[in-house]
Amino acid sequence: MKATARAHTNIALIKYWGKRDESLILPTNSNLSVTLDGFSTETTVHFREGLKEDSFLLNEQKVEGAALGKIAVFLDKVRALYGKEIYAQVQSVNHVPTAAGLASSASGLAALAAASSKAIGLSLDNMELSRLARQGSGSASRSIYGGFVEWQMGEREDGLDSYAVQIADQSHWDIRIAAVVLSKTVKKVSSREGMRRTVETSPFYAGWLEQTAKDLQEIKQAIIAKDFEKMGSVAEANCLRMHATTLGANPPFTYWQDTTMRVMQTVQNLREQGIPAFFTIDAGPNVKVLYLPEDEAKVKNSLQAMEDVEDIIISKPGSGISYM
Amino acid sequence: MKATARAHTNIALIKYWGKRDESLILPTNSNLSVTLDGFSTETTVHFREGLKEDSFLLNEQKVEGAALGKIAVFLDKVRALYGKEIYAQVQSVNHVPTAAGLASSASGLAALAAASSKAIGLSLDNMELSRLARQGSGSASRSIYGGFVEWQMGEREDGLDSYAVQIADQSHWDIRIAAVVLSKTVKKVSSREGMRRTVETSPFYAGWLEQTAKDLQEIKQAIIAKDFEKMGSVAEANCLRMHATTLGANPPFTYWQDTTMRVMQTVQNLREQGIPAFFTIDAGPNVKVLYLPEDEAKVKNSLQAMEDVEDIIISKPGSGISYM
Repeated sequence: MKATARAHTNIALIKYWGKRDESLILPTNSNLSVTLDGFSTETTVHFREGLKEDSFLLNEQKVEGAALGKIAVFLDKVRALYGKEIYAQVQSVNHVPTAAGLASSASGLAALAAASSKAIGLSLDNMELSRLARQGSGSASRSIYGGFVEWQMGEREDGLDSYAVQIADQSHWDIRIAAVVLSKTVKKVSSREGMRRTVETSPFYAGWLEQTAKDLQEIKQAIIAKDFEKMGSVAEANCLRMHATTLGANPPFTYWQDTTMRVMQTVQNLREQGIPAFFTIDAGPNVKVLYLPEDEAKVKNSLQAMEDVEDIIISKPGSGISYM
Repeated sequence: MKATARAHTNIALIKYWGKRDESLILPTNSNLSVTLDGFSTETTVHFREGLKEDSFLLNEQKVEGAALGKIAVFLDKVRALYGKEIYAQVQSVNHVPTAAGLASSASGLAALAAASSKAIGLSLDNMELSRLARQGSGSASRSIYGGFVEWQMGEREDGLDSYAVQIADQSHWDIRIAAVVLSKTVKKVSSREGMRRTVETSPFYAGWLEQTAKDLQEIKQAIIAKDFEKMGSVAEANCLRMHATTLGANPPFTYWQDTTMRVMQTVQNLREQGIPAFFTIDAGPNVKVLYLPEDEAKVKNSLQAMEDVEDIIISKPGSGISYM
């Protein structure tokens, strides 16, 4: 009753920004991401008779408290599917550079869903696996697949129709994603709290949902047609709109710092020089830059020349779940 | 047929951000400002028989082209009220520190409306004067009055009910407004174009209008009650929402720079230290900071300690139109 799985993290090009059900983790809008080959989590789950509780080693360090609690709550769902109370040893290694501003929860929960369901003897297809991972972390539902992935929001109250599907695999389109790591970042509002406050108080939320549904259709067409300008400009506009909703919340807040704006400006300057580069930003100050392989040197040079940029980590579209 | 008038500029605490009629300059929402004693325009208008066209001296320099054209178009409205074709020499002196990021159009058009209507022999009351100034520049309608001023949007298509009224005069409340002048600012989108693009394309515009109507009622209560925390937090939230609407426009744009965000952060840090300070930002990168007289040293020190701050110009609530 032991299995090992690896999952890559992903970044949303059409943002997931609000839950219609907090406990089942059902989103208010369908959203879309690209899985990144540069960042992964490898997790081994070993269910053993005789254990009195779950345990968790992360990067060879014993973890307890809230993080272990989250794992145990997730394993409860797996045990419920299996129908038997049996505890597990969980070991994870995060191949996500520290402070990269990339959530390890997407790769972490996807790998945990895959390893634990296999270890306990369930044979889940990708749809079932995505639905299970979703209940650990919304964005983990997308990390089941490689390439370009849509998390379909679904309509059912029980969440059975809320899972991710692959739009195009990682071999479809060779683009690059640079994660720009800023020095001295402070994240003041968690994404969970930020989403909730925005959904409940921002007068822009209805406008966000309406426009995001259109963005999703447009970006899917752009991905299928490999229209980089279209894909990038829709992703950037969608990101700006997501961040605009937080400025309208009560009380207002932002994930941006002065350095965030400077990276945005650098990307716009690249475009003014004729280089198609676009940015996207999640619930934190770090910026991810989308560009084409042939522009790598110019993009990298511009970003490296900036003050307060600590690191630049470059990814390609990565693969979905794999088992070791 | 000669008269001289002085008007002070103003900053909006509830923003004017969109026109329902471009030619009459009728706004999509009622808005509110404080007139600033630190910035004024003094204008002399001399109508003389025998002149073949209008002329304009600004700060003793002859002005032609678009700026003269704008003056001439405005004087046409005054001539139409008077019913006779007679041209004028216009001389203005702007007591607005250059690059302060404060629009001189509010004080400029208010002074021009007052001086020209008096010079030509019209005897306009404040309501009529505000309505006239509005047709030169929307925010000029508010600079007719001192202190705290509301521009009532009105409902009529001909604009007769769209003019400003005084909420409280400049002696009502002793607050301070620091204009923080940033070095190296670039304004890429004019406020006229920015408004238009936002009204036409931003999915947030309906939410902006709905919330702004509530903000206006709240800030009027706060001004009457001299509740600084309330006044400041409503003004700051309203400003953030105005700027959020531009991020949702197509194509998206922002008036903020990295330094703009740094000033916003400094103001938030002041609040965390217990000093009630709030910011507001118009259609440009510069920031205005609202605070109470007793906190002047602390606010000034914090702002002066910042990189890329070129100047800090401090105002109190100022007076309305006066004639020399």
